[in-house]
Amino acid sequence: MPTIDAPTLERLTRDIFAARGVPGDDATWIATLLVRANLRGHDSHGVIRIPHYVRSMKSGDANPTPKIMIVVETPTVALIDGDRGFGQVVAKRGIALAIDKARAQGLAAVTLRNTNHVGRLADYAEMAAAEGLIGMLWVNARMALNVAPWGGAARRLGTNPHAVAVPGPDGAVAMSLDFATSVIAEGKLKVKLNRGERVAPGIMLNAAGQPSTDPREFYADPPGSLLTAGEHKGYGLSLAVEILAGILSGTGGARAEKGPVRNGTLMVCLDVQRFLPLPRFHEEVMALFGWVRSAPLASGAKEILIPGEPEARMEGERRVHGIPVEDETWRQIQECAAEVGVA
Amino acid sequence: MPTIDAPTLERLTRDIFAARGVPGDDATWIATLLVRANLRGHDSHGVIRIPHYVRSMKSGDANPTPKIMIVVETPTVALIDGDRGFGQVVAKRGIALAIDKARAQGLAAVTLRNTNHVGRLADYAEMAAAEGLIGMLWVNARMALNVAPWGGAARRLGTNPHAVAVPGPDGAVAMSLDFATSVIAEGKLKVKLNRGERVAPGIMLNAAGQPSTDPREFYADPPGSLLTAGEHKGYGLSLAVEILAGILSGTGGARAEKGPVRNGTLMVCLDVQRFLPLPRFHEEVMALFGWVRSAPLASGAKEILIPGEPEARMEGERRVHGIPVEDETWRQIQECAAEVGVA
Repeated sequence: MPTIDAPTLERLTRDIFAARGVPGDDATWIATLLVRANLRGHDSHGVIRIPHYVRSMKSGDANPTPKIMIVVETPTVALIDGDRGFGQVVAKRGIALAIDKARAQGLAAVTLRNTNHVGRLADYAEMAAAEGLIGMLWVNARMALNVAPWGGAARRLGTNPHAVAVPGPDGAVAMSLDFATSVIAEGKLKVKLNRGERVAPGIMLNAAGQPSTDPREFYADPPGSLLTAGEHKGYGLSLAVEILAGILSGTGGARAEKGPVRNGTLMVCLDVQRFLPLPRFHEEVMALFGWVRSAPLASGAKEILIPGEPEARMEGERRVHGIPVEDETWRQIQECAAEVGVA
Repeated sequence: MPTIDAPTLERLTRDIFAARGVPGDDATWIATLLVRANLRGHDSHGVIRIPHYVRSMKSGDANPTPKIMIVVETPTVALIDGDRGFGQVVAKRGIALAIDKARAQGLAAVTLRNTNHVGRLADYAEMAAAEGLIGMLWVNARMALNVAPWGGAARRLGTNPHAVAVPGPDGAVAMSLDFATSVIAEGKLKVKLNRGERVAPGIMLNAAGQPSTDPREFYADPPGSLLTAGEHKGYGLSLAVEILAGILSGTGGARAEKGPVRNGTLMVCLDVQRFLPLPRFHEEVMALFGWVRSAPLASGAKEILIPGEPEARMEGERRVHGIPVEDETWRQIQECAAEVGVA
């Protein structure tokens, strides 16, 4: 498995997209976020997506030069139509608008429709947090269904993630939470499948609706389904995500209909300073984290972490030692590069 | 175990509070919400609380005639100080303000501090939904800690619930989600303790940080702790609740300090009509629910429910057949009534 340093991977990624007509700044931004996902240990959202993104451009599902339009706009609310643009590009525009509005009004809600895969929600929530705001996102994926409703035995919902990022001092991010409402993300099942391993109980059902630990049953025909995190709780939150992110944005909720994957997105930014001075807020957040970390460890646990810490550590390590890329992924990326004459 | 009809229980509850100096409308409202919790099957949030509420008034922790003050107010944001009032009374004021602001501005955020127990969050979220808004709440309880952080073995967090209610047509509520970020609420452990039963694995740790199914270990000295729902996911959401509801409201996050329980609350209301016409929204929500319900049943499951349905069914049943009240709770309520000469 090759290990590639982050700047090299970013340059190659940018060049591939730029060569296919994505404007330079957008290509750089897409490359930054894809490689950032790898840096932070979420390889399922990293450069492994390049071949798929390239296919989306070829098929016309992804528009490299979208005319992003603000369809609805008030001082606190906006609805953005992404014109089939890359999710990273549309979401960057969306969060910038939400940040501006939240600064002016105390809070703001922006929805995005007609966009491709937006990637990791944490990235946008953290952009708000770096500006002293609390950033929250909800995202559905109406055509990428792999999760069973609680009590059900077939795929009816996406992994429907939710993210919350909290500001720290001097543009830092104090906490960054980003979780799928399913027990695990689909990508992790695929890794187990490829390795011929089983998963822990409580993660998936087979097509007959029985608990299964065999990823092959998930990918069988008829397929299995993922379970929701926290049983009925993750199910309820997943439905809320369908409504908040899918229906409010005009993307639509989960449904039987087939078509290209579109992420419906809701972003809410909240200005901490409307409620209390930022220095006091930072102090209280640090006190909370200190209190939580002061607990003795549970049997078998190594430490108590704050959401975002595992990612920060992984980034520190991978910035120094490089990003391991599976042979097959690396081969596909090089193929994408060769097709457009970059390397 | 006596079975009391709802109107009788409401009248008795109202009379107890009114006799102790709670203004008539407030006493009626507190009685309505306590009995509604019983009607909807959440007995832990129902009339079982009366003796505790009465004690809070006697000790001065609860102020029957609070001067509720709006400490911060902008067109979209407000921070309310409840002057130690009953949570039901302060939260009613808060959600009314959030609803008005969201109607005018598209969305609004209101925090509450210095309030007693607010009860079930669903009640306030549903008030927003009945007005065509999406209502969301987050609540912490800085001094009522019973949940371990993920990886930890001692109580550091409250059960920190989150609620989302979604409007249906004609003032109906299409979906009402209200869940603790712990695996189960503390009240359910107490029921098991009183019955001498064990709980399922995955719910609690003993004081040594080992998995336990014995509720006696939760209530021992040193005490056990509840686990978070969905492992690290519920833990992350619980921390977010501490920050959104506790710190933003000025109530404060979880901490070692002892004192009377205060609920810190954040309410956000979002006006659906800013994003799409209500009739289309209702149609899409119904289509989503239909799609989700169309899944075949998982092994052992009886049906696929929408959040809020179990409560609605229970209410239908208990409105007809009355509310069962445990002997000890009933005895304590009658004692509270006798103390102030009502019956």
